[in-house]
Amino acid sequence: MRILGIDPGYGIVGYGMLEKQGNRLSYIMHGAITTGKEEQFEGRLDTIYQELMKIIAEYKPDLIAVESLYFYKNVKTAIFVGEARGVILLAIKHSNIPFVEFTPHQVKLTITGYGRADKNQVQKVMKMLLKLDEIPKPDDAADALAIAWSAAVTYKEHQFKSTK
Amino acid sequence: MRILGIDPGYGIVGYGMLEKQGNRLSYIMHGAITTGKEEQFEGRLDTIYQELMKIIAEYKPDLIAVESLYFYKNVKTAIFVGEARGVILLAIKHSNIPFVEFTPHQVKLTITGYGRADKNQVQKVMKMLLKLDEIPKPDDAADALAIAWSAAVTYKEHQFKSTK
Repeated sequence: MRILGIDPGYGIVGYGMLEKQGNRLSYIMHGAITTGKEEQFEGRLDTIYQELMKIIAEYKPDLIAVESLYFYKNVKTAIFVGEARGVILLAIKHSNIPFVEFTPHQVKLTITGYGRADKNQVQKVMKMLLKLDEIPKPDDAADALAIAWSAAVTYKEHQFKSTK
Repeated sequence: MRILGIDPGYGIVGYGMLEKQGNRLSYIMHGAITTGKEEQFEGRLDTIYQELMKIIAEYKPDLIAVESLYFYKNVKTAIFVGEARGVILLAIKHSNIPFVEFTPHQVKLTITGYGRADKNQVQKVMKMLLKLDEIPKPDDAADALAIAWSAAVTYKEHQFKSTK
């Protein structure tokens, strides 16, 4: 089964895909959808929606894992990221793919065994686990691979539902 | 021209439409899209998107005014409302209708002359201005009419853009 991880944002949406065959996980791809400040905000949301629909159509994931947002430095940023996350969830719904959510804490705990691990530590472990030559770039795509990894290793049939 | 006001939310999205003919504003309709807790969150987002697309197709607004969110009691609520607002902006974009944003402060100031007016005060003024027999229900729809009113009275051609 193919698992697509997504790290939500409005400037950059990181994504990364892994394949799970039996007990083995392998790297498929990673990348980022980027939107520019010069575009109107609703246009940026539409870019995220359209690009994600394309990625899903092309790579046909069996499961999508999205990072959930609970803490943010300021409410204004939280709302903007929330708006982007809303259209990401809508694209998933419109593609009819099951999805799961993970908090950053759960991802860090799953990858490093420590829920408060720093970003760089998570990325180094991911590079090693996926046998990559370099840390995947941008950071958002590395995070997305970590989210996909977390979904892959904790996957059970009954988890195929929204956690909200 | 017809102006549709929208008060974003994930449990209730209020909407209300006014018509502007020359210097005269008249009431067209109001209502609310509601989604239930029993539904998965991505399903609730899709209900909001689909229902709003239907309302836009049926009532053909020339302009849509959406309340912007900047302050929220807690970040978690802000993110959920942000997610709903994201799919609302996407439906507007997919309908190709110009839209404007107003903060609650701007709406209160426009309707009552006082930016910190309470909800009830705004609703009473709206009832009077629109010559309605009763205060529109639910509150979210009354708020949506107030947002449409604010857009109607401050409307200028060059405002036809996202303010973000």
